[in-house]
Amino acid sequence: MSVTAAKGFTAAGIAAGIKANGNPDLALVVNTGPRRAAAGVFTSNRVKAAPVLWSEQVLTGGEVSAVVLNSGGANACTGPKGFQDTHATAEKAAEVLGHSAGEVAVASTGLIGVLLPMDKLLPGIEQAAAQLSEHGGEKAAIAIKTTDTVHKTAVAQGDGWTVGGMAKGAGMLAPGLATMLVVLTTDADLEPADLDKALRDATRQTFDRVDSDGCMSTNDTVLLLASGASTITPRYEEFAEAVRAVCDDLGRQLIGDAEGASKDIKVEVVNAATEDDAVEVGRSIARNNLLKCAIHGEDPNWGRVLSAIGTTRAAFEPDRLNVAINDVWVCRNGSVGEDRDLVDMRYREVRITADLAAGTESAVIWTNDLTADYVHENSAYSS
Amino acid sequence: MSVTAAKGFTAAGIAAGIKANGNPDLALVVNTGPRRAAAGVFTSNRVKAAPVLWSEQVLTGGEVSAVVLNSGGANACTGPKGFQDTHATAEKAAEVLGHSAGEVAVASTGLIGVLLPMDKLLPGIEQAAAQLSEHGGEKAAIAIKTTDTVHKTAVAQGDGWTVGGMAKGAGMLAPGLATMLVVLTTDADLEPADLDKALRDATRQTFDRVDSDGCMSTNDTVLLLASGASTITPRYEEFAEAVRAVCDDLGRQLIGDAEGASKDIKVEVVNAATEDDAVEVGRSIARNNLLKCAIHGEDPNWGRVLSAIGTTRAAFEPDRLNVAINDVWVCRNGSVGEDRDLVDMRYREVRITADLAAGTESAVIWTNDLTADYVHENSAYSS
Repeated sequence: MSVTAAKGFTAAGIAAGIKANGNPDLALVVNTGPRRAAAGVFTSNRVKAAPVLWSEQVLTGGEVSAVVLNSGGANACTGPKGFQDTHATAEKAAEVLGHSAGEVAVASTGLIGVLLPMDKLLPGIEQAAAQLSEHGGEKAAIAIKTTDTVHKTAVAQGDGWTVGGMAKGAGMLAPGLATMLVVLTTDADLEPADLDKALRDATRQTFDRVDSDGCMSTNDTVLLLASGASTITPRYEEFAEAVRAVCDDLGRQLIGDAEGASKDIKVEVVNAATEDDAVEVGRSIARNNLLKCAIHGEDPNWGRVLSAIGTTRAAFEPDRLNVAINDVWVCRNGSVGEDRDLVDMRYREVRITADLAAGTESAVIWTNDLTADYVHENSAYSS
Repeated sequence: MSVTAAKGFTAAGIAAGIKANGNPDLALVVNTGPRRAAAGVFTSNRVKAAPVLWSEQVLTGGEVSAVVLNSGGANACTGPKGFQDTHATAEKAAEVLGHSAGEVAVASTGLIGVLLPMDKLLPGIEQAAAQLSEHGGEKAAIAIKTTDTVHKTAVAQGDGWTVGGMAKGAGMLAPGLATMLVVLTTDADLEPADLDKALRDATRQTFDRVDSDGCMSTNDTVLLLASGASTITPRYEEFAEAVRAVCDDLGRQLIGDAEGASKDIKVEVVNAATEDDAVEVGRSIARNNLLKCAIHGEDPNWGRVLSAIGTTRAAFEPDRLNVAINDVWVCRNGSVGEDRDLVDMRYREVRITADLAAGTESAVIWTNDLTADYVHENSAYSS
């Protein structure tokens, strides 16, 4: 499973001593070929971590032979020294693996504004390289966890080819492009341009629509590596759908593990004039703290949905809006609808449907409730 | 004090039975003249409560003789019946006071999506009218409270004239134009156009820059009524400054009483290319849930400030950003600055200074920390 589900990849995950608690904190994913085509999408936050700046450059070449990932430190807002550290990380991996540093992507996650302990990280790369295995995918997925309570992997099978992946992410979840760290691998044989298109299309509809807490990371990275080891070039649409399915699966797992959350909220905006309108309205609802508190309290407070819709530029008439919570249409024509006491909110998943009555487009945004546990987890210590 | 600090105004606040707990819930403010000039600014939420739609119409005439305000129900998302109820409220006040309904503004606050108990509200207007007094300002301020723990009044004295006011607001605090319910009164003698300009300028720099929880109300209303009873027409700049001072004072009180908050956070953006940039960056910082949790935990987590700045379109270079928390420059040139352990965050007020190093403009946004108490207050019952 994970990044080694597809043929042509090895991986490892070890404890290099970057985390003070001794948990695994360094992962290596290596493409053993024969092909090395790759694509990547990165955070649109203008404050980008050193590894994001580095990996963006690597990806312009369209080939990636290895990815070094570490938890225990984001290497963001660390100035020229931080960038030198990322460069040294890629150089070390290149040296150990016999590749060019220009084909080694780097991804980091953890606290912003702290330099990485390179005296731990560089020896860790040698150690990880010695443990590379076709069965190392799970260990790699475990090594990139931060506040994640579970590691996250997914797989989609094509006809003779496979797409697999791993993700980490539990907080600062609100993509401008992607969220968190994700490495996807495939043994299908595709050109970088096709990988890029499939990855962008998939992230736009999956990770981009996961919005747990409205906070965009400095380190978001999603990579897709193709080994060509299956020697099969699938039909593009089929391959793109497999990538989308794996991204969707991983995105759903991110929401399910969001810091402090007790509810997963599916915000579905329907009958919008445009898809952009649907996404804007969905995101506004997903980011409304008062609504997220109400959902936590199992209170079908639809007035807070309407007040969130009202802050957008989307096309709608206030007196034509309809809102359902768990399929009970508590708001009809912008006013009181069915009895709110009919809404059953006992389960973890809550569905909010906002009908804009302005067209035929729709979008789904996933978010979480806002809880005292979220406050605790993000105030009790630095993360 | 309050709305009766200026000559030419009477007010009353009573318990009409709109709130189930029997607390005061109905206020009346009457301009006894000789002039009736008025101005108003309202929420820019596109989902507007019935009283907002009504009062916007009233204000187009430039004259207001009375304001009816109720807590215990927002009369928002209540359809045609809700608008009829607001109309009936104005008609009743007009009848009792001998004015035209077209000069009676109405403001409501409380739960969205519930019709007001008109059988309580209409008799309440008669009862309140019977208690109108030149000393009724405090009682009126008390009657408009919802989750407010204290009532809020302010006053500024000119040379022979006065500006006074009252405000309510503790949650859903994030103006698109104004926040919450505010009535300002003055005995200065001014034309509606001057009142309007002074009020818009003041709210733009005060209430507009209070952003406790990022949630914009459907009912925000700020009214300025001028009786002309002092027979003085002050210099415009002097009057505008008095209005700004009262708005600033009330805005600061709103933050100080925000639901569940334990910290008042002054976000000061300096050296921005434009004032709009400064406001956009300030608002992005003020709305960052992770940062608000960190401040609650007295953790000077400046990385979360940078990640918030990075989501804006403002002019800046990431490696020239500086951030101070309580005057300690913990981030310099986008990287690690002074020792974060030097930051003392024990007190209620916390100052975050973001230096964009891109120009000479600045702005201040006030916000609060995010606490378990906020979650509790907004999840334990409907509000």
